[in-house]
Amino acid sequence: FEYDGPSMKTEVPGPRSRELTKQLGEIQNVGAVNFFCNYDDSRGNYLVDVDGNRMLDVYTQISSIPIGYNHPALMKVMTNPNNLSAFINRPALGILPPENFPDKLGESLLSVAPSGMNRVQTMACGSCSNENAYKAMFIWYRNKERGHNIPSQEEVNSCMVNQVPGCPDLSILSFMGGFHGRTLGCLATTHSKAIHKLDVPSFDWPIAPFPKLRYPLEEFTRENAQEESRCLEEVEDLIVKWRQKGKPVAGIVIEPIQAEGGDNHASPSFFRSLRNIARKHGCAFHVDEVQTGGGSTGKFWAHEHWDMDDPGDIVSFSKKLLTGGYYHKNELTADKPYRIFNTWMGDPSKNIFLVEVLNVIKRERLLEEVTRSGKALMHGLYELQDQYPHLLSGARGKGTFCAIDVCDDPTRNNLIAKARNKGVILGGCGDRSIRFRPALVFKEFHVHLFLNIFNDVLAEY
Amino acid sequence: FEYDGPSMKTEVPGPRSRELTKQLGEIQNVGAVNFFCNYDDSRGNYLVDVDGNRMLDVYTQISSIPIGYNHPALMKVMTNPNNLSAFINRPALGILPPENFPDKLGESLLSVAPSGMNRVQTMACGSCSNENAYKAMFIWYRNKERGHNIPSQEEVNSCMVNQVPGCPDLSILSFMGGFHGRTLGCLATTHSKAIHKLDVPSFDWPIAPFPKLRYPLEEFTRENAQEESRCLEEVEDLIVKWRQKGKPVAGIVIEPIQAEGGDNHASPSFFRSLRNIARKHGCAFHVDEVQTGGGSTGKFWAHEHWDMDDPGDIVSFSKKLLTGGYYHKNELTADKPYRIFNTWMGDPSKNIFLVEVLNVIKRERLLEEVTRSGKALMHGLYELQDQYPHLLSGARGKGTFCAIDVCDDPTRNNLIAKARNKGVILGGCGDRSIRFRPALVFKEFHVHLFLNIFNDVLAEY
Ligand code: FES
Repeated sequence: FEYDGPSMKTEVPGPRSRELTKQLGEIQNVGAVNFFCNYDDSRGNYLVDVDGNRMLDVYTQISSIPIGYNHPALMKVMTNPNNLSAFINRPALGILPPENFPDKLGESLLSVAPSGMNRVQTMACGSCSNENAYKAMFIWYRNKERGHNIPSQEEVNSCMVNQVPGCPDLSILSFMGGFHGRTLGCLATTHSKAIHKLDVPSFDWPIAPFPKLRYPLEEFTRENAQEESRCLEEVEDLIVKWRQKGKPVAGIVIEPIQAEGGDNHASPSFFRSLRNIARKHGCAFHVDEVQTGGGSTGKFWAHEHWDMDDPGDIVSFSKKLLTGGYYHKNELTADKPYRIFNTWMGDPSKNIFLVEVLNVIKRERLLEEVTRSGKALMHGLYELQDQYPHLLSGARGKGTFCAIDVCDDPTRNNLIAKARNKGVILGGCGDRSIRFRPALVFKEFHVHLFLNIFNDVLAEY
Repeated sequence: FEYDGPSMKTEVPGPRSRELTKQLGEIQNVGAVNFFCNYDDSRGNYLVDVDGNRMLDVYTQISSIPIGYNHPALMKVMTNPNNLSAFINRPALGILPPENFPDKLGESLLSVAPSGMNRVQTMACGSCSNENAYKAMFIWYRNKERGHNIPSQEEVNSCMVNQVPGCPDLSILSFMGGFHGRTLGCLATTHSKAIHKLDVPSFDWPIAPFPKLRYPLEEFTRENAQEESRCLEEVEDLIVKWRQKGKPVAGIVIEPIQAEGGDNHASPSFFRSLRNIARKHGCAFHVDEVQTGGGSTGKFWAHEHWDMDDPGDIVSFSKKLLTGGYYHKNELTADKPYRIFNTWMGDPSKNIFLVEVLNVIKRERLLEEVTRSGKALMHGLYELQDQYPHLLSGARGKGTFCAIDVCDDPTRNNLIAKARNKGVILGGCGDRSIRFRPALVFKEFHVHLFLNIFNDVLAEY
């Protein structure tokens, strides 16, 4: 089914990609376009471009392709006549769901529900998942403050014109370096790059430092533990401070591994303590698994590495799950209909694909595969950073969710461009890191292919 | 192809729907669920439920089904092998678009571009369309204030922690009764129902009165013109006031017909004056056509009824267009990549359907059909409100985008429930209105079918 390696015909972007970029430039800002793709010819771990170049994809559409391109199991979904109408007639799921909706949720999202959560709300992307999760936390928090769920007439009137007490001064605590999306609510909790936030009005919400750990984690346990304590103290201080300011923290939102912000890790004990702090101060705890969820850390959810029965109150997802949404505990269910609502509330056609993706993950034991490939990848990255210490450092990862630091930003971008011309697609994150985000079907064989090519790039540099 | 009329087996929701609602209730809040649907058996204007009831659909999934259920042209899309990979491999459109993306945009969205706009940004739903349109207006406004697009170091630093000047105190002016979505940015401009906004933090942005006109518009031209002048003056006052407050209005957002807020109309001259006020004060003018766009007013865009060469700076869409997004003038293009960005930036599989929808609209001359059906519908509604003045009043509409007021909220809901049991699906909006939102394939024949059934409901009441 899959190709046996990269095959390069031109530099990338090639002439056809450049031509199409020019054409699209008449319609949109194309500053972020890398190249144009031939998705028909792409297979498994290989993305083919419009100039006939075939590249090993270690970035997978910003970490959103779970089991590679054109997986036969997904092709079959398309040719099954029973599925046709789900693609053609997108329903308003919140009011008129299709007959198989509860069953499909059971087979798909509920079959991988995080510990302690048996309720799930589908949404259409990571941003609306987080926006609605925040709303659920605000609603829950206000009802808790009130002691009941009947708003006063003053609240009803004032909320219509965006004023307190109906639109209360509540906040969400987020972390420096975090990324939770780019719509205005999400963006108020995103702190990865200035260009994402510049010129957009925001909320005065508390932002805690995320631990800056030294890697490999095993070698710096004492320093790292100190750094984590410092951050946890700061979190508690901020919660108190914002309560005094009259903007209580309704919820804490965090990624198990800060992805866009530079693949920053923290220890399971950090997350366990943070979860306790949230509980102690009556804040909801929201684990954003939009990028980490779906298996690439070697467990289906990255928070499973914390080994907790009660990892959070809300877990949001999107990307590799194909549909967006969030799981939540019972208490976080909105108390009335239409409070968490929009026209589509997701897309059942994505749930159908997700059922198949989960089947493939089980059938092909892909989580074990990821763990195996991840070990080989980390091993290779350690070797490379030993060999090229002036270029590389800080190799880190869980499963194949790995990253490495490059000496500076221009060199990082250069390495990515050179690797691409040799047939490997990589992505950056943070100020000067390269992140590895292969699909779950990335095997040890692909790891070695990648390492060989990357080694060539480094040797020539 | 289509059924020849409604056919009812049980009351709605029937036993199977109630059973499934209970099942789904274990997973989600089901307070908004009407009934469960059999989308396989639904055809054209008829929605079939899981109890075998077949109903004439005059609400169409909150106005989001353009050419009826299971249209043969859309079935063909699914069986064309060339389209398979677009469904299976959802790309990160902003960085790795498929080869046919510029062409598909040309065939679909650009072929119906509003006057004066040749650029379009796809998004995935109405909320992200509006959120990103607001961001585009903020970016444009700040660059205009600066006189250049190079942020100061202070701006770069402060935006990372949500503070001025990097996250400036800019505002969007919206209208009481408006609806623009439910994510936090959109929600700050939404003022239709308290329950949508209650308990969610918001921005202190200006809210102008929307004209409260008397219907039929032709009979109250003088009073209505006065009311519109009053609102326009208030808009100018608010712009000045918010500038003085240090929260300048970067943009004005308005629906051509306020939909969720109760189907409130205003005259073309109101919109033309408003557009001039925006220009005079240097605010961007954003026309939200999420519900009005796509043909149901008898023109493809409702703002075409204003008869202007330069109707706005931004026009957003979703629902019947199947993909979300917004058109914009050149000046509103973000100056740098990654400022208007997210993982998916839309979904090319929806563009493929849209190409076919637009073909059908042209081939079957559906805009003419809508105009014809709309006339028959308005005529019928006028007759009904003459006949039942204690129940109905204020019939109004453009094309089939029509509504009528009911004496009070419980009666409205009762009429909708009774009509449903007789095989007609209607939706409410505002405090006590019924809105009519059939698909574009709703012909005069269907209008009469609906009017007969509705007349029966009213006669029995
Ligand atoms: S905000 Fe998620 S799809 Fe639009």
